[in-house]
Amino acid sequence: MENFDFYNKTKIVFGKDVENKAGEECRAIGSKVLLHYGGGSIKKSGLYDRVVKSLRDAGVDYVELAGVKPNPRLSLVKEGIQICRKENIDLILAVGGGSVIDSAKAIGVGVHYEGDVWDFYIGKVSPEKMLPLGVVLTIPAAGSEASPSSVISNEEVQLKKGLTNICLRPEFSLLNPELTYTLPDYQTACGITDMFAHVMERYFTTTKGVELSDRLCESVMKTVVHQAYRVLKDPSDYTARSEIMWAGTIAHNDMIGCGRSQDWSSHGIEHEISAIYDVAHGAGLAVVFPAWMKHVYKNNIGRFARFAHEVFNVDYDFEKPERTALEGIASLERFFKDIGMPVRLSEMDIDDRNIETMASKVTGNGTHTIGGFKELSKDDVKAILKLAL
Amino acid sequence: MENFDFYNKTKIVFGKDVENKAGEECRAIGSKVLLHYGGGSIKKSGLYDRVVKSLRDAGVDYVELAGVKPNPRLSLVKEGIQICRKENIDLILAVGGGSVIDSAKAIGVGVHYEGDVWDFYIGKVSPEKMLPLGVVLTIPAAGSEASPSSVISNEEVQLKKGLTNICLRPEFSLLNPELTYTLPDYQTACGITDMFAHVMERYFTTTKGVELSDRLCESVMKTVVHQAYRVLKDPSDYTARSEIMWAGTIAHNDMIGCGRSQDWSSHGIEHEISAIYDVAHGAGLAVVFPAWMKHVYKNNIGRFARFAHEVFNVDYDFEKPERTALEGIASLERFFKDIGMPVRLSEMDIDDRNIETMASKVTGNGTHTIGGFKELSKDDVKAILKLAL
Repeated sequence: MENFDFYNKTKIVFGKDVENKAGEECRAIGSKVLLHYGGGSIKKSGLYDRVVKSLRDAGVDYVELAGVKPNPRLSLVKEGIQICRKENIDLILAVGGGSVIDSAKAIGVGVHYEGDVWDFYIGKVSPEKMLPLGVVLTIPAAGSEASPSSVISNEEVQLKKGLTNICLRPEFSLLNPELTYTLPDYQTACGITDMFAHVMERYFTTTKGVELSDRLCESVMKTVVHQAYRVLKDPSDYTARSEIMWAGTIAHNDMIGCGRSQDWSSHGIEHEISAIYDVAHGAGLAVVFPAWMKHVYKNNIGRFARFAHEVFNVDYDFEKPERTALEGIASLERFFKDIGMPVRLSEMDIDDRNIETMASKVTGNGTHTIGGFKELSKDDVKAILKLAL
Repeated sequence: MENFDFYNKTKIVFGKDVENKAGEECRAIGSKVLLHYGGGSIKKSGLYDRVVKSLRDAGVDYVELAGVKPNPRLSLVKEGIQICRKENIDLILAVGGGSVIDSAKAIGVGVHYEGDVWDFYIGKVSPEKMLPLGVVLTIPAAGSEASPSSVISNEEVQLKKGLTNICLRPEFSLLNPELTYTLPDYQTACGITDMFAHVMERYFTTTKGVELSDRLCESVMKTVVHQAYRVLKDPSDYTARSEIMWAGTIAHNDMIGCGRSQDWSSHGIEHEISAIYDVAHGAGLAVVFPAWMKHVYKNNIGRFARFAHEVFNVDYDFEKPERTALEGIASLERFFKDIGMPVRLSEMDIDDRNIETMASKVTGNGTHTIGGFKELSKDDVKAILKLAL
C-alpha cells in the first residue's frame, strides 16, 4: 500500500425527503445562497418549489443562476462568479447532477481568484479555498457530491479539463433516491457507466498489496451491475435506486481508492471526445473503456482475469488465464449494451476524422504520456480510438 | 436501505513516518497540546521522542498526561480535564491505541461541561463539543481513530459505558503501520478480533435491501481473516500490517454501516465481562460472539449461511442451509483459536458465578432488552453467557 492522505468532510444526508433539509443545512453556513441548477426539469418535478420553500422557511435569502448544460460551460461559470461577488453570496446550493455541481465548484473557487478561473483547470495555479457548497443530488453518476473534483468545458477553445483539489469537497450533500425515479433510462445508464468507470480507474492499478481496496472496489462494481438491471426494469424501485445512488458516491469519494495508484486515462480520452462531439460522458466512457482494456490488458493478465472472475463471475481458466481476462472485457461490453449504452464510436456517428486531434490534445501534442497501468503515448491513444470505431 | 446521516471529518494521514507530522498537524489547530498516552512502550520504541521532537519543531507547547491503562479509567479522565482547564489546552494529542484515544475523547468533552463527565456515559446529557483531538495510532483495533465513540470504565461502580456522538470524531489521525511491528501477538490478535466484531455488528442486520454495504462488510472481513494469518506469521510484513491497520479504521468509521440497523449486543455483553474481570476487550469478544451467534442464528439462517459462504468460503448446502450457517460459526471459532484467542470463558478462568450480575447489568436489571437482530432479554443474555462457559 502506498502512503496516502484521506480527508472527506462532506456531510451526507441520505433518504426520503431529505431535500427539505436544504434550508436548515444552508442556514448553518450562511444566509445568502446562489441557487444553481440546470433547466426546467427540477421545476416540472416540483423539486425546485420544495427547495425554495425550504430556503425560505429557514430564512435563507437566495439568488438564482440556472442554465447549466451537460459538459458545463466556462461562460456560465464566469457569470456565476460575477453574481457571487456582486451579491455577497455566502454559499452555493447546487441542485442537479454532476454538471451543476462541477459548475458550482468552478464558481466557488473563481470567486476568490482575481485571474481567469480557467487558470485552475489548465494547472497554472492551484485554488486555496472555495465558497462553501451544498448539493441536492438528482443524478447519481459523477460522484461530484462528495469528490474533490470538477470538470469544465471551455467552449471557446473546445477543451474539457478536470480539476482536483481538496478544497473542492462540498460541505453537505442531500441524497434522496426518489428524486431519480423520473430519470430517463438513457441518463440512468450513463450515470451507471460513469460510476462504474470511477471504480475501474481505481481498480486497474500497478500497486501491489492492496487487498482491502481491491475487494471494496469489487463490492461496488458487483453491486452496480446487479442493481443496474433492477433499476432499469423498475425505475421506481427504491432499493435499487438507493443502492445505485450510494454506490455513485462511494465510487468517487476515494475511500476505496486510498493507497493505490490509479489510471484515469479513459476519462481523459473521453473528455476529448465529448469536448468535440458533445456526447454524454457516460456513453463516451462505455465506448472508450473496453477499447482501453483491449489495448492494455496484457500488462497484467492476472488483474483482468480477477476482474472477470470477481465482478462478472467468469470461471477462471487455469489453463489459459488470458481467456478469462478477455471474457471479462466481453462481459463488460455486454453489460454496457444491456443497459443501452453504445460500445463503439460508430454508434454515436463518430468516424475516424478527429482521432489524430483527440490523441494529440490528450497527450499535449504527443509531448507526454497518460495513464499508469500502461503509459499511453499519442500512438497508443490513436490505437485505442481505432479499436473503438 | 434506511435513511442515514454520514459525516466523518477525520483527516487520515497513512504510511511510513507519518508520526513526524504530528507537530504540523497540531500547529494547524492550536499551540498548546495535552500529550496523552499510556505507559513506557512508546518511550522504549522511540515513538515518544519522535512525537515530542515533531511538536517542538513545529513550535507547539505541550503538557503530558500518561498512565492510560486498557479499559481506561474515569479517574484519569478527570485528572485530564483539570489539566486542560488549568493549562488552557487547545487540543489533545492521543498517542496510543483505543484506550488512550477513548480517554482523550472523554477528557475533550469533559472540559466543556461543568457537571460530572460520567453523565455523558450514562446518557444523562449529550455532549455538544469536544476539544479538538489528534491521534498517533499504535494499535489497530478499536477504530476510535476515526469513530465517534468512546468507552470508559468507572472503577468506583464497576461499570464500563460507551458514548457515541458526532462531536467525538478526531480532527486527524496519523497511521503508520510500522509502529505496530512490535505489538505482541496476543495484542495484535485482540485488535483483529475487535475490528472483526465491529464489522459483524453491522453485518448482522434486520434491514433488507442493503447489498452494497453487505458486500463492503464482507470485503473487510475477508481481508482481515486473510491478513491476520500473514501478520502473525511475519509481524514485520508491511503490507499485512497496512491492510490490518486500514481495515481497523474502515471497520468502525461507519461508512460500511450506513443505512442499516446494527446490533451491538455482543459488545455490550463483553463490556460487562471486562468491567468485572478486566480481560482484554478483544479476547472477551472472541468468547461472546460465537455464543451470541449460536443463540440467535435461527432468526435469519440465510444471513448466517451467507456469512459462512462469503467470508469463510463454506460451500453452500442447498439441501440444508442451516448446516452452512453452523459451519460459519464453527469457522469463526476456528479462526479465533488460530490467532490465539480464547473462545470460552473458562479459558480466561471465568466461571458462572457472575452471570446473573452481568446479565442484569447489561439489561438494566432486566428492565429492557438489548440488540436488534434478536432482541435479548436478561434470560437471553444468561443463556449466551452459559453457552460461552
